Amino acid sequence: MRIRLASEADWPAIWPFYRVIAEAGETYSLPDEPMETAIAQWFAPGHTVVVAVEDDGTAPRDDGVPGRDGVPAGDTVLGSAHYGPNRPARGSHVSTASFMVAPEAAGRGIGRALGEHVVAAAAADGYRSMQFNAVVETNTAAVKLWTSLGFRIIGTVPEAFDHATEGLVGLHIMLKPFERADS
Amino acid sequence: MRIRLASEADWPAIWPFYRVIAEAGETYSLPDEPMETAIAQWFAPGHTVVVAVEDDGTAPRDDGVPGRDGVPAGDTVLGSAHYGPNRPARGSHVSTASFMVAPEAAGRGIGRALGEHVVAAAAADGYRSMQFNAVVETNTAAVKLWTSLGFRIIGTVPEAFDHATEGLVGLHIMLKPFERADS
Repeated sequence: MRIRLASEADWPAIWPFYRVIAEAGETYSLPDEPMETAIAQWFAPGHTVVVAVEDDGTAPRDDGVPGRDGVPAGDTVLGSAHYGPNRPARGSHVSTASFMVAPEAAGRGIGRALGEHVVAAAAADGYRSMQFNAVVETNTAAVKLWTSLGFRIIGTVPEAFDHATEGLVGLHIMLKPFERADS
Repeated sequence: MRIRLASEADWPAIWPFYRVIAEAGETYSLPDEPMETAIAQWFAPGHTVVVAVEDDGTAPRDDGVPGRDGVPAGDTVLGSAHYGPNRPARGSHVSTASFMVAPEAAGRGIGRALGEHVVAAAAADGYRSMQFNAVVETNTAAVKLWTSLGFRIIGTVPEAFDHATEGLVGLHIMLKPFERADS
């Protein structure tokens, strides 16, 4: 498994698990919308999108030329993450990010790998911290993962998420300050 | 002073103080952008926009027909607020709102009047609570006002706002649960 920058050519590979996760209604409050608007939001201007991919045994192209339909050969997309500024202008030094892992690839550490990658990339890009605005409190795997990566819960908005099976549950705001080489 | 629903005809009256407040860089992290995109965001789909207006002595029209250029006669816009869902779908029962008062109209209770109006309107619309995502902690007048209206600080994201004169200061997340007639 490796993590690489995503392009619009990856939309069709992200969309199946994006839709499953959105429709499950357990971890994200996402509208019911077609791929064209949903994934466009994932690739919103100013955001960097990566995918975790598995080599499917065919030789990946190493000449920088995209494979068939623009997708490098040898890729099976297992998950995706995007990050960018949490606010514009005077709030743009704080990053935010979102993560999705294909349900059939759960339990393989892909969320952790994407998290570590995105935190390092955002810090390298010069952001001072990363803020998650809405971590569903019943998503204990996510809370545990982010805590292990140095995020702490800033506060919890009670009953802010209408969980598909649990009803109204809280949303955590979580923050990880980045260590800075110049401080 | 009274509060009424705003329309696109109010854009030119909102824009001067919106721009001053945005450029001051003390209370909002807003991008440097032209009226067409800034005020379009204020009037984003799904949001309700109101204005606080002062009767300028001319007779307001009471026939429901807009005045010249679509603006009811007798209006001087002193401030504006908008509210809508803080998140889509499974988070859409929580409202959020933003407020701007023309600097020359400060100290007259317009922010409070807009706040009381918007809280009541959002509760009447069926929202269960109102969340502010980014109240600048040095904006003590706002923090005091919202606290007096029943908001509490859920948490504070340290150094999340690059204040024009104070440097990096925190952003409060504030919440007011609405009392519900059916509970």
